[in-house]
Amino acid sequence: MNHERNRYREFLKDNIRQRVDFSQTDQRRQIPPPPVEKPFSPDARRIALKKIDLLGDLGAFDLKSAIAHRESCRFYSGEPLKLDELSFLLWATQGVRLRLDAGHALRTVPSAGCRHAFESYLCVLNVEGVEKGIYRYLPLEHELLFEQAPEQLESRIVRATLGQRFTGDAAVVFVWTAIPYRMEWRYGLAAHKVIALDAGHVCQNLYLACEAIGAGTCAIAAYDQPGMDRLLGVDGEEEFTIYLAPVGKKG
Amino acid sequence: MNHERNRYREFLKDNIRQRVDFSQTDQRRQIPPPPVEKPFSPDARRIALKKIDLLGDLGAFDLKSAIAHRESCRFYSGEPLKLDELSFLLWATQGVRLRLDAGHALRTVPSAGCRHAFESYLCVLNVEGVEKGIYRYLPLEHELLFEQAPEQLESRIVRATLGQRFTGDAAVVFVWTAIPYRMEWRYGLAAHKVIALDAGHVCQNLYLACEAIGAGTCAIAAYDQPGMDRLLGVDGEEEFTIYLAPVGKKG
Repeated sequence: MNHERNRYREFLKDNIRQRVDFSQTDQRRQIPPPPVEKPFSPDARRIALKKIDLLGDLGAFDLKSAIAHRESCRFYSGEPLKLDELSFLLWATQGVRLRLDAGHALRTVPSAGCRHAFESYLCVLNVEGVEKGIYRYLPLEHELLFEQAPEQLESRIVRATLGQRFTGDAAVVFVWTAIPYRMEWRYGLAAHKVIALDAGHVCQNLYLACEAIGAGTCAIAAYDQPGMDRLLGVDGEEEFTIYLAPVGKKG
Repeated sequence: MNHERNRYREFLKDNIRQRVDFSQTDQRRQIPPPPVEKPFSPDARRIALKKIDLLGDLGAFDLKSAIAHRESCRFYSGEPLKLDELSFLLWATQGVRLRLDAGHALRTVPSAGCRHAFESYLCVLNVEGVEKGIYRYLPLEHELLFEQAPEQLESRIVRATLGQRFTGDAAVVFVWTAIPYRMEWRYGLAAHKVIALDAGHVCQNLYLACEAIGAGTCAIAAYDQPGMDRLLGVDGEEEFTIYLAPVGKKG
């Protein structure tokens, strides 16, 4: 146990950096960076989202109150989420502030080396005007990409979160995947700790942004890894689920 | 490389949970939880901090603007930080909302299983009315605990961050340590990923809270692990540095 525990603890330290030969990373070897967003077919069904500067007062809220009142919320009113509210949450968590080039974009959250190794999937259960199903956020376009509409999505998301029933009561479940190569391209084996740190940045913005629209969330790190990856349709190797957060209006 | 890379990627997945026998965790074996805050001597020098509800308008700021304008900031004006501003930043990142019992307290940030595995150290370089030195935040008391005043603190912090010179220009450098047993007590080997996620939550609140007081920060995950641990005076095993963030007024 102790040997294994120390190996796990080691992951949280920064000793690995001493072993990485940064002259041999793909970045230094002039290999082009992976795209900031996973490609999609031009024929795919997409849903436009209102840009943040067109959302008016939506999301206007005192930061200090958001921090003071944030708490993990596992009970939702059943009221649908509005599409503009979802647009705000997506902007707050992964929105692009500025595209620099094909491989770099500044976002509303910080990321080590500006690598932003995540994709945001949404299990949409109860969002006004959006058919139930699995979608992916396209941060460059600020659009939703329709992925699929599995049968019995509520019970599938509950199963994939090991029976945590409140996930099926949410209006939408955010499921973040990591594409680790985006970070490995620059940092090699020093990539993985910072991917986890970055996922925490993203989720904290979701907590605070929820407060601003009368919604609540509760981060989930306990899930069925292969089951969740299968539900999203990702391969579990080059892209896999890293963190989840169901969102719903507060009761 | 690929074998090792896959082992590192594995850390970001939740497969480990299937291997943990949760009936054998220290929590289930009725071992009392570790304290929510590292003990300190009653004779130690401490500095009172104003509670959040006595800070008036300090920190009042629109959440949406904080998210929109947040960016990593490596240049600081040299203006000192006020003690009340530091009080606000500490509240936002690790403040206690409610103490439940000796082993549990709700904070301004979420933590897996309410375990809150961090201590916040401060390298105070330029804070009004506070002598230069290393301090620890006491979240239960909302006080600063004086730890030590090493010579040439600026150059030592620069060295411990592998020569990132802007750390020495900050008004204060937040250095978070992890005490992994706090999380292992409940989650065994499923503790370590969530500690890293939690550190991201904390740092994101620091980014946003800085915006509210005209300050900036830049998270740092690249540091000299043994050197930083030595500077703080922590043992590097049961407690070790996990993440850093220098803070200063924007130029």
